[in-house]
Amino acid sequence: MAKEVTNRAENYSQWYNDLALKADLAEQSAVRGCMVIKPYGYAIWEKMQSTLDAMFKRTGVQNAYFPLFIPKSFFSREAEHVAGFAKECAVVTHHRLMNDPEGKGVIVDPDARLEEELIVRPTSETIIWSTYKNWITSWRDLPVLCNQWCNVVRWEMRTRLFLRTAEFLWQEGHTAHATSQEAEAKANEMVNVYADFARNVMALPVIIGHKSPNERFAGALDTLTIEAMMQDGKALQAGTSHFLGQNFAKSFDVQFTNKEGKQEYVWATSWGVSTRLMGALIMAHGDDNGLVLPPKLAPIQVVMVPIYKTDEERSAVLDKFAVLKAELEAQGHSVRIDDRDTLRPGFKFAEWELKGVPVRLAMGARDLASGTVEIARRDTLEKTTVPIEGLGARIIALLDDIQQNIYDKALAFRNANIRKCDSWEEFKTEIQKGGFLLCHWDGTAETEQKIKDETKATIRCIPMDSVVCEEEGTDIYSGKPSHRRVVFAISY
Amino acid sequence: MAKEVTNRAENYSQWYNDLALKADLAEQSAVRGCMVIKPYGYAIWEKMQSTLDAMFKRTGVQNAYFPLFIPKSFFSREAEHVAGFAKECAVVTHHRLMNDPEGKGVIVDPDARLEEELIVRPTSETIIWSTYKNWITSWRDLPVLCNQWCNVVRWEMRTRLFLRTAEFLWQEGHTAHATSQEAEAKANEMVNVYADFARNVMALPVIIGHKSPNERFAGALDTLTIEAMMQDGKALQAGTSHFLGQNFAKSFDVQFTNKEGKQEYVWATSWGVSTRLMGALIMAHGDDNGLVLPPKLAPIQVVMVPIYKTDEERSAVLDKFAVLKAELEAQGHSVRIDDRDTLRPGFKFAEWELKGVPVRLAMGARDLASGTVEIARRDTLEKTTVPIEGLGARIIALLDDIQQNIYDKALAFRNANIRKCDSWEEFKTEIQKGGFLLCHWDGTAETEQKIKDETKATIRCIPMDSVVCEEEGTDIYSGKPSHRRVVFAISY
Repeated sequence: MAKEVTNRAENYSQWYNDLALKADLAEQSAVRGCMVIKPYGYAIWEKMQSTLDAMFKRTGVQNAYFPLFIPKSFFSREAEHVAGFAKECAVVTHHRLMNDPEGKGVIVDPDARLEEELIVRPTSETIIWSTYKNWITSWRDLPVLCNQWCNVVRWEMRTRLFLRTAEFLWQEGHTAHATSQEAEAKANEMVNVYADFARNVMALPVIIGHKSPNERFAGALDTLTIEAMMQDGKALQAGTSHFLGQNFAKSFDVQFTNKEGKQEYVWATSWGVSTRLMGALIMAHGDDNGLVLPPKLAPIQVVMVPIYKTDEERSAVLDKFAVLKAELEAQGHSVRIDDRDTLRPGFKFAEWELKGVPVRLAMGARDLASGTVEIARRDTLEKTTVPIEGLGARIIALLDDIQQNIYDKALAFRNANIRKCDSWEEFKTEIQKGGFLLCHWDGTAETEQKIKDETKATIRCIPMDSVVCEEEGTDIYSGKPSHRRVVFAISY
Repeated sequence: MAKEVTNRAENYSQWYNDLALKADLAEQSAVRGCMVIKPYGYAIWEKMQSTLDAMFKRTGVQNAYFPLFIPKSFFSREAEHVAGFAKECAVVTHHRLMNDPEGKGVIVDPDARLEEELIVRPTSETIIWSTYKNWITSWRDLPVLCNQWCNVVRWEMRTRLFLRTAEFLWQEGHTAHATSQEAEAKANEMVNVYADFARNVMALPVIIGHKSPNERFAGALDTLTIEAMMQDGKALQAGTSHFLGQNFAKSFDVQFTNKEGKQEYVWATSWGVSTRLMGALIMAHGDDNGLVLPPKLAPIQVVMVPIYKTDEERSAVLDKFAVLKAELEAQGHSVRIDDRDTLRPGFKFAEWELKGVPVRLAMGARDLASGTVEIARRDTLEKTTVPIEGLGARIIALLDDIQQNIYDKALAFRNANIRKCDSWEEFKTEIQKGGFLLCHWDGTAETEQKIKDETKATIRCIPMDSVVCEEEGTDIYSGKPSHRRVVFAISY
């Protein structure tokens, strides 16, 4: 095999890096903490984007674009938001370079200092709400439902490809509503859009829930989250949707005249997912041979590898492949014929396995003679020889089956790694084994913090969609009464 | 009418701003020189993006993403590039804010100074070629054909919505090739993609040509351009494609082993179009009633306005519209039924005219009775009453006709405003009238500069596709011999 991948069991973290790098998804750039997203990785992100974008638009959301820069003073406006976001960020202080008078390249022109520093957006609530002030005067202007696809920067000390990078790509939706109820409903609708996308497109079984107050977005009254379990048993927060109340409306004085002619502050939500989803995709489904991509996100769904000794054999096989490719493409599937002449079939097999292509076909002279083809599925690594007759329909059914199977496998893994835990001693041991622990919690930030300090575990969410959690009990740590279990885990 | 638009004849510049603002395309933000692209404007940009993206991909180009930031030292590498781009740009010097010890909001943490300043990309040749160094070692790795859709920042003193903003959105393609010929062919292919897009999607008749050496991109051996004429007779550079030779490969030491086993520097191109195209769209086609959008870029292609006195009439008309809407949408057309109950039809007509919607239908009780509908086309403002029978097919044909007519009109305008000019005295008068002047030029930067100093006119391009320019003559300014005419104009 061309590129060795570390075994998960041996070194999970290295396995992850190997997949990201060797499957050509991304790499570190010359700029500390900033990644380059390579064409193969970006093609997956584009599929995520276009699917999500269509889902957003079906809920009435429109795209727009707001400035990259935010005046420093905006971060002083919303008190909690400052604490949460105005810390590690990129600060623009000057607007000009000049030639070094000593001839050593270029230097910052000291005369070109900005009057007010600009912050590269870590998130855009402040600049967007300063804009909404101009857009909203009456109840007729509401709701405003905007989303933007953009880059954001949060200065991170320790970075990992996709999971934590100084610059990342994301979408951020920002909506404005006349009532609290409507805003809450929107925040809820969007977290459900994320869950739908995670489950049905990414094949990622996620738990929807509320964040505890400690873990809320800075400035939010409620944060809804989807939490996924990675193969090492850690949790990964895959998307969040915030009910922001009137906090930003008050900070930026966004009021509207209601139907009764009275002035009221506007109600807000914001919600986002990022290139972090790429990390989730790698870690949820990958195996020791490389990526395993759900067909709905695979840039190449079917790869065809010809096996031949002579030019005649080669062209006969390639002709067959071309017909099949046209048939599959006509039905919206993406196909690559790997006709590279300088590489052996075994090398190609390993490469496409590493890249997670769901279905691989191999065909040689003997297959041609017998009217068959070898078909390999990436998720189970099973190979079967099947008739060429009816192959198009078979492949299309197989892609559906793979999509479902990848989800089922991840779901079975997650379910096998969720367990109830009712004693503090047990918790301290069990949490180190990975997985989600369903435990009683007394609802206080104090207890949550103590558990975090002692075990690194946090409350990932207070599940919304899981009735089993509603029961009386006592807090695992404090022993105080509790009315429901919550999800504890160590997280990315 | 709700929003008055300044007449073009009265104040062209104000007319442009009125259209951008009042048609809800964009507005200035709280950050100097940075615009907010509003949902209606962004929807047009999205259509431009998706069309161009598909065109790029058909030529084998893949998308990728490179960092927002560029280390300052990279700008010292390519000497000409420094001079051209390393001047007015946003410089990040710090990575942290902190609470002001005196309690006045937040300040920049003086301890969080970066070791090396980072520049917000004004264009990405340097960071991309530093990346390509890792991707390219052999002829087998070539060509590399990447594009990215992103934001860039060039600090501008005087800004105008879309035409010149500190931050703007664009795409930048960066390709790497084994031979000079292949790179030149790619630069040529891409300028032709731009011309195709401009003509057939934007309805913009453009002239393809080479830039004079003075007007080339910093670091390019050749810059190809498409130049469009706006309604005030000024030229607008709508897209450029650069043959970069081996300049960036040499600056970043990107070599490959050729088929003969020898090390060679890689050959490069880059090419881009930006949200400036939105400005071109406004200025090329708009009229005194507002935007005129080519159907291929209109977010709403058909708007339907019901005319009614009673609820019964209203619902009868809306029912008819719903059927027609479904028919048009099934064929991929975008339709809006304007059922807002609080606005008069006349107000709605004016609003959709301002927003440039190509086709407007109005239907009332009398139309229902007679089986007719009033159909208005935005480009000519003509209204006709036609049978409802067969309306879907009629509208689809009309959209094609409007697309063609907008192009034809712009082409006729441009052709009427291109003229030959053979005397310097005449030139000085004629150039002030606007339009393109076809003149002989001696090929020297010196003459070009003098003409610019005296008249503000520049050589927009040395046309590639216009055989009429190939003729012997004498330079309009210097009187020296010349072998072809070039296009002079005052430009945006």
